[in-house]
Amino acid sequence: MAHKYVYWFGPNEAEGNAEMRDLLGGKGANLAEMARIGLPVPAGFTITTEYCTRFFQSGGKFDDELRAQVAEALARTEKTMGAKFGDPEKPLLVSCRSGARRSMPGMMETVLNVGLCSRTIPGMIASVVKGRENDPVARTQAERFVYDAYRRLIMMYSDVVMEKAEGIEPGEGQGIRQQLERIMDALKTAKGYKSDLDLTAEDLKQLCAEFKQRVKEVLGREFPDEPQEQLWGAIAAVFKSWNGKRAVAYRRIEGIPDDWGTACNVQSMVFGNKGNTSGTGVCFTRNPATGENVFYGEWLPNAQGEDVVAGIRTPCPLNAASKSEQNKHLPTLEEEFPEIYAQLERVREILERHYGDMQDIEFTIEEGKLYVLQCRAGKRTGTAALNIAMDMLAEGLIDERTAVRRVEPAQLDELLHPIVDPAQERNFKPIAKGLPAGPGGACGRIVFTSEDAVLWAQQKEKVILVREETSPEDVEGMRAAVGILTSRGGMTCHAALVARGWGKCCIVGAASIEVDSVAKEMRVDGKVYREGDVLTLNGTRGYVYEGRLPLIDAGENPRLHQFLQIVDKYRRMGVRTNADTPADAATARKFGAEGIGLFRIEHMFYGAGSEEPLFILRKLIHATTDEERRQAIDELAPYVERDIRATLEVMDGLPVTVRLLDPPLHEFVPKGESAQLELAQALGTTLEEVKKRGESLHEVNPMMGHRGVRLGISYPYLTEMQIRALLRAAASLKKEGKNPKPELMVPVTCTVKELEFLRPIFDRVKKEVEEEFGLSIDCPYGTMIEVPRAAILSDQMARSAEFFSFGTNDLTQMCYGFSRDDIGGFLPTYLEKRILDFDPFQTIDVEGVGQLMQMAVERGRAVRPNLKIGICGEQGGDPASVAFCYKLRFDYVSCSPYRVPVARLAAAHAAIAAGDA
Amino acid sequence: MAHKYVYWFGPNEAEGNAEMRDLLGGKGANLAEMARIGLPVPAGFTITTEYCTRFFQSGGKFDDELRAQVAEALARTEKTMGAKFGDPEKPLLVSCRSGARRSMPGMMETVLNVGLCSRTIPGMIASVVKGRENDPVARTQAERFVYDAYRRLIMMYSDVVMEKAEGIEPGEGQGIRQQLERIMDALKTAKGYKSDLDLTAEDLKQLCAEFKQRVKEVLGREFPDEPQEQLWGAIAAVFKSWNGKRAVAYRRIEGIPDDWGTACNVQSMVFGNKGNTSGTGVCFTRNPATGENVFYGEWLPNAQGEDVVAGIRTPCPLNAASKSEQNKHLPTLEEEFPEIYAQLERVREILERHYGDMQDIEFTIEEGKLYVLQCRAGKRTGTAALNIAMDMLAEGLIDERTAVRRVEPAQLDELLHPIVDPAQERNFKPIAKGLPAGPGGACGRIVFTSEDAVLWAQQKEKVILVREETSPEDVEGMRAAVGILTSRGGMTCHAALVARGWGKCCIVGAASIEVDSVAKEMRVDGKVYREGDVLTLNGTRGYVYEGRLPLIDAGENPRLHQFLQIVDKYRRMGVRTNADTPADAATARKFGAEGIGLFRIEHMFYGAGSEEPLFILRKLIHATTDEERRQAIDELAPYVERDIRATLEVMDGLPVTVRLLDPPLHEFVPKGESAQLELAQALGTTLEEVKKRGESLHEVNPMMGHRGVRLGISYPYLTEMQIRALLRAAASLKKEGKNPKPELMVPVTCTVKELEFLRPIFDRVKKEVEEEFGLSIDCPYGTMIEVPRAAILSDQMARSAEFFSFGTNDLTQMCYGFSRDDIGGFLPTYLEKRILDFDPFQTIDVEGVGQLMQMAVERGRAVRPNLKIGICGEQGGDPASVAFCYKLRFDYVSCSPYRVPVARLAAAHAAIAAGDA
Repeated sequence: MAHKYVYWFGPNEAEGNAEMRDLLGGKGANLAEMARIGLPVPAGFTITTEYCTRFFQSGGKFDDELRAQVAEALARTEKTMGAKFGDPEKPLLVSCRSGARRSMPGMMETVLNVGLCSRTIPGMIASVVKGRENDPVARTQAERFVYDAYRRLIMMYSDVVMEKAEGIEPGEGQGIRQQLERIMDALKTAKGYKSDLDLTAEDLKQLCAEFKQRVKEVLGREFPDEPQEQLWGAIAAVFKSWNGKRAVAYRRIEGIPDDWGTACNVQSMVFGNKGNTSGTGVCFTRNPATGENVFYGEWLPNAQGEDVVAGIRTPCPLNAASKSEQNKHLPTLEEEFPEIYAQLERVREILERHYGDMQDIEFTIEEGKLYVLQCRAGKRTGTAALNIAMDMLAEGLIDERTAVRRVEPAQLDELLHPIVDPAQERNFKPIAKGLPAGPGGACGRIVFTSEDAVLWAQQKEKVILVREETSPEDVEGMRAAVGILTSRGGMTCHAALVARGWGKCCIVGAASIEVDSVAKEMRVDGKVYREGDVLTLNGTRGYVYEGRLPLIDAGENPRLHQFLQIVDKYRRMGVRTNADTPADAATARKFGAEGIGLFRIEHMFYGAGSEEPLFILRKLIHATTDEERRQAIDELAPYVERDIRATLEVMDGLPVTVRLLDPPLHEFVPKGESAQLELAQALGTTLEEVKKRGESLHEVNPMMGHRGVRLGISYPYLTEMQIRALLRAAASLKKEGKNPKPELMVPVTCTVKELEFLRPIFDRVKKEVEEEFGLSIDCPYGTMIEVPRAAILSDQMARSAEFFSFGTNDLTQMCYGFSRDDIGGFLPTYLEKRILDFDPFQTIDVEGVGQLMQMAVERGRAVRPNLKIGICGEQGGDPASVAFCYKLRFDYVSCSPYRVPVARLAAAHAAIAAGDA
Repeated sequence: MAHKYVYWFGPNEAEGNAEMRDLLGGKGANLAEMARIGLPVPAGFTITTEYCTRFFQSGGKFDDELRAQVAEALARTEKTMGAKFGDPEKPLLVSCRSGARRSMPGMMETVLNVGLCSRTIPGMIASVVKGRENDPVARTQAERFVYDAYRRLIMMYSDVVMEKAEGIEPGEGQGIRQQLERIMDALKTAKGYKSDLDLTAEDLKQLCAEFKQRVKEVLGREFPDEPQEQLWGAIAAVFKSWNGKRAVAYRRIEGIPDDWGTACNVQSMVFGNKGNTSGTGVCFTRNPATGENVFYGEWLPNAQGEDVVAGIRTPCPLNAASKSEQNKHLPTLEEEFPEIYAQLERVREILERHYGDMQDIEFTIEEGKLYVLQCRAGKRTGTAALNIAMDMLAEGLIDERTAVRRVEPAQLDELLHPIVDPAQERNFKPIAKGLPAGPGGACGRIVFTSEDAVLWAQQKEKVILVREETSPEDVEGMRAAVGILTSRGGMTCHAALVARGWGKCCIVGAASIEVDSVAKEMRVDGKVYREGDVLTLNGTRGYVYEGRLPLIDAGENPRLHQFLQIVDKYRRMGVRTNADTPADAATARKFGAEGIGLFRIEHMFYGAGSEEPLFILRKLIHATTDEERRQAIDELAPYVERDIRATLEVMDGLPVTVRLLDPPLHEFVPKGESAQLELAQALGTTLEEVKKRGESLHEVNPMMGHRGVRLGISYPYLTEMQIRALLRAAASLKKEGKNPKPELMVPVTCTVKELEFLRPIFDRVKKEVEEEFGLSIDCPYGTMIEVPRAAILSDQMARSAEFFSFGTNDLTQMCYGFSRDDIGGFLPTYLEKRILDFDPFQTIDVEGVGQLMQMAVERGRAVRPNLKIGICGEQGGDPASVAFCYKLRFDYVSCSPYRVPVARLAAAHAAIAAGDA
């Protein structure tokens, strides 16, 4: 027997099934499955993805084998539908739709109403008017209906089949479709019509004639009037759309292989716009916004599918449960067509039980008869995903593993933050777009300085802090604000890092905004916004809106906790947090963090309460004699110890990785003259000297300057103080019966000799502290892997380091040569032009940075098999990156407190996907 | 038979030979060889390096096998020398010296006069006074001689054997040697002596007694009075000095394995200070400064070897040829002891013929008898190295390969630049040290601004430009100056790059200098130097001197050309140059460059004649409309084309790699208000707008910012203009019958998509230009590999790139995370503390950066086997780096014009070393 390329489906019967996605595509497989389980699917057939590949290999030709199989399947469809393709009496019309293994929404082509031509139009009219042959209105309506369908066919076909599929690239605005639209608009204008619905049957007839004329002029050939020619042209165009520009670009981004190909679904047309007993709708087997186990949807009487989407008419609610403020006055399907509604309820039950998941169903009612056109797993909000998973688990529809996989890690975000109401948001146009740096939504009055933010917030005003970019001096204002908006910076600029750490709404790099913090105003597209004006931010999408948009506070879902406990049963990798304060540590612990992967000592010099230690640090930096230095160190030590101790205490029993001072000293130098003067007085020196010292610390590229371990080696006394503070904090807690688990981490290393240089200091101080307290302290000594050279020579690093923690922010910066403070200048262009498929500061670049990481893991563990490995870069909370870390057999990932649940879920997904759980 | 650990040597006979360096160390092997070929070597024996290892393995103990072999060798020595070790009548004294496979000068220990003790002193005195027993003066002289020897033994032995070898670490200034020196100084002060020579026999006797007393007090044990105990103590100390701190550190730097061990040479003492028929000296078989084939050396009558080195007495010339201004009035050995001089002449001939190289010989005359104590290949200047190699080749002493290897690549430097006279330099103390950024010497008046440098130079004044750091705006002043000195920056900062490109003397990062360019003065250690004060720079060493030091101008040696022609016969890798101007290109071509590996378009916007194109570029940068942009581009294009054309013409027939604009645009923005105003007027905008645009281009880390290909993608019109300029320049030359060989290079790439994005522009413009000129252009399209990610993904890069050129400056920056503009803050500390063994911006870090390079070469060539690979980073002129590039099978290295001969020689060395030539 010949190879099978065509799979038929029809009532209660189908040659394919849901398992055959690879061959039939998602749509085709589901159509077959629905037919097989008895759902009312219009009959039709699927040409396989395999044939698509063959089609390209044979240079875009069809062979006789396919023609024979299509003829056979078409005949069977005709028989089922009681109509014949191309028949003048009872013509069958079909649609040709694409459908790949994985959904590529809107990326490929569709042609509807195939089979309509001068020969079949009368028969089609007759079939519509059937039973009301003597009613002249019905006749006119039928004519209008059929010519409207024909008009649509010409527009769609000339565009998709005759132009795009032929590789014709018309000039801007010169596409055939646009030309035809202009003809139609001209007619409407001439006749004074407001809507397409005003077009009469005669108008449409005239239009079709003009359309065909124009098609011939522009494309140089007649619009095909032969149904078979239409059909094969449409099939070819669907296949060719697999290699259309949009589809190819989309595959690049999504990593979909080029050789998968698309299937082509040829299906009998049914019409929801055939009159008052017809209609169309979309429904969800459960509420996709809340997850509630109620049938939910919208419908439109006497309409086609595209009318529901187009938004010209307000769709009606499916049932009482689907009513909203906008549509509660409109009739429900349940009330209007109770029998059909009951049928649809049955479909709902069957599909949900069959697929074990919430389904998104498209249906059409043609003259009182229900057809199901498509079903697929329904998109849902995070809240809904969680509730549906937990409900279905309780209902016994799915098992735990499936429940865990039913929630996307990123969806958890909205369960932890207030968000802009998505239903409302779609009615607004953003005034600017930036990078989604901190999740959730925020709405407030804009202010332009940190001081103003604090002042307004004290007046109980919700404020959004707008800055060109933020610096550590803005931290107070950032904390006081409900949202942060900057015109510069990338996903890991200062504002983004701080905001994400706090789980605060933040948009950065909104380049179209011009911020003038002196005049206290901002400009966008020529419009000025002044202090006190209200903006709304969607930090999850990076959209800025004028005025007040409603926020919804998903709040803390009690089921989240239950869900995450199940998640943890399937997790095989630790999740820690990046936290610098007892408050953040407590938050993270509440979210399930199993330790701190990054505690940054420098945090104590930023923000509230930092005045005193910062002043002492400045004295230390500006000291000119050893005596002054020693004094400043002695003064600073108790602050550092107190600070570390407080967090160690909150994390009692869990490991806390404390990193030595990392930023270049220039960051701490006083910038304003009054602060400089104060410092000069305290040091008994001149303002000029203070300024000079400050300037001398300025660096051209501070990111690669005198920072991290380089400071530790230049100023060993500073290192010793930090080590002593850490170990004394741990020892004093242990003395009180607590269980502190400190770990010391050295940043920015590029050679093992740096670690070997500091190690004797560590060993000596440890011995001294142990003697002082009369107890022993367990404190692993490790390093960040954030410089490419350290990754490459990790076998050497592992000689001295007892653990590695990947600093993927810096590793990405150096691997790409991208300064994360400056990527605003080119990253948007790179993403737009598809030179980069994603922002590597959000998701680990597995291809490049990932090779360095893999190398580091393999070489490090070859030397020290029990080497503990983690990640504390921003990507530690990104689901794809978590999966990659799992693949590399990391011991843990560490992320900001609000990302901990996300990371837990992502880790469980990775373990399940790998078959480890 | 037992394993042989001891190798004897004596007149005409030796158990070892010159081939046995690994076993006997360099010194031992040469002593054996000299003995074997009949030279008068004092008898003795070498304990092997193998035993050294065994010594450490057995925990620092000697075994009976060694004791027996030493006893046997000692007995044979005694017999030869006619004296017995420890014998009261005719005592034999010996020295114990270290000697490893490779010379580790001054890093290990020596003990002289071993065997002198209360029992042997009288016999020793008797042997000295022998033949003049009745002369009381002779007796006193003999006593003085012997007690002086004993005093030296106690000082040396207590320090080396009793303290250091025992691992005792006394406090600062509390070492036993320092204590004994203070006792001696106190005695000299008490007696009013000026010199050690004033000490009488009685004084020395008293000192020896006091010394022994102090040794006992401080070290807790008696000074050993038993010759055998002294001997074994000394041998053990020599072995242990292999693991002394200095030796270990030195090995780290030089990459000498720890397990080589040192040999120990035990040799009969001979004394050059036994009276008027004794003496000592050092000589070279040819003049080590000029290479002239004359016997050359210094000697001192009645003196010990260390006196020649100590510089207390001015050494006498060996012969007429060795006379200088300082010593021409002193007697020559040739005149004073013609017979001994004749013997020494014989030694010279024998050794040079035997070793086929210029030898450095130490000799001692003891009472009229000549002894040769050491010989080794003599150190020589570059000029000497060249002349000796060419002479010996002509004399038939060596073959071409050997001649090529006899000149170190780095030595060529001094043949191309004036240098500070080394003979004079040693008498001066530098006031500051910095990094040796540009080779050679320079002497001139200091100025503090570029303008002043130009002004003074116009007055025919030689000036040294002193700056905190230089910027492109200083280029004119840098060119006008004979030398450049900066207080900041690393080996690849702006000043260093520019200076090296021109072969100009330059010192950067002299951190102890405080530059105040407003007050026009600099401070070093509290001393102020004002404009017009004279300094001398040794740019080869990085030393800054006050006042005028004599320079010698080796000038252009005609033999260099001949030598380099021989060199090229053995070279197997191309050498190109980095040049941006026709002048530099011509210089490089003269030095043998085979093309340009890096032509930077941005050069035309710096320095003389850049005003116009720079102004147009600024207009382009500040343009706000497409119209303005197009206009500026059209204005700029002819300048770019003219600039490229001029260099292509000079390099006719040789490839010229032109790199697209690389620096971030902020570098070109006008900084001064007058320039800003001028631009504002030209653009018809406000000063404020110009400032604002300039500021908006400022970046936090410009090195990793919006530069290189990122500019090329953001501003495709700018890229297109450059490509067109390059191709038109080439086409117009070709039209004239020339043979231009352009290559287009894309900088700072991190993904192949960047190359793929620009490639269609390149292809289109090429077609257009080819049609315009009616000819075809061959122009390979390639990329720099300077971002780690590009190296890692070089297999992808090679899909699009036809050649790779390693930008090892940036690759090193990103691999280490070192900003080369800021390393002044920590690199000196890193080098001093041995955290880094070398500056990776001078020499490729084979271990780390080298792995990325190797990966890039292997992966790139796997995809494109004929991929052309070169290097255009600064290290392209560094000999060790050239060798590494050769190992990776690069097609060429490219370096600054003045380094081209160095690179040619280094490449030949690499090929010979690899056995390829």
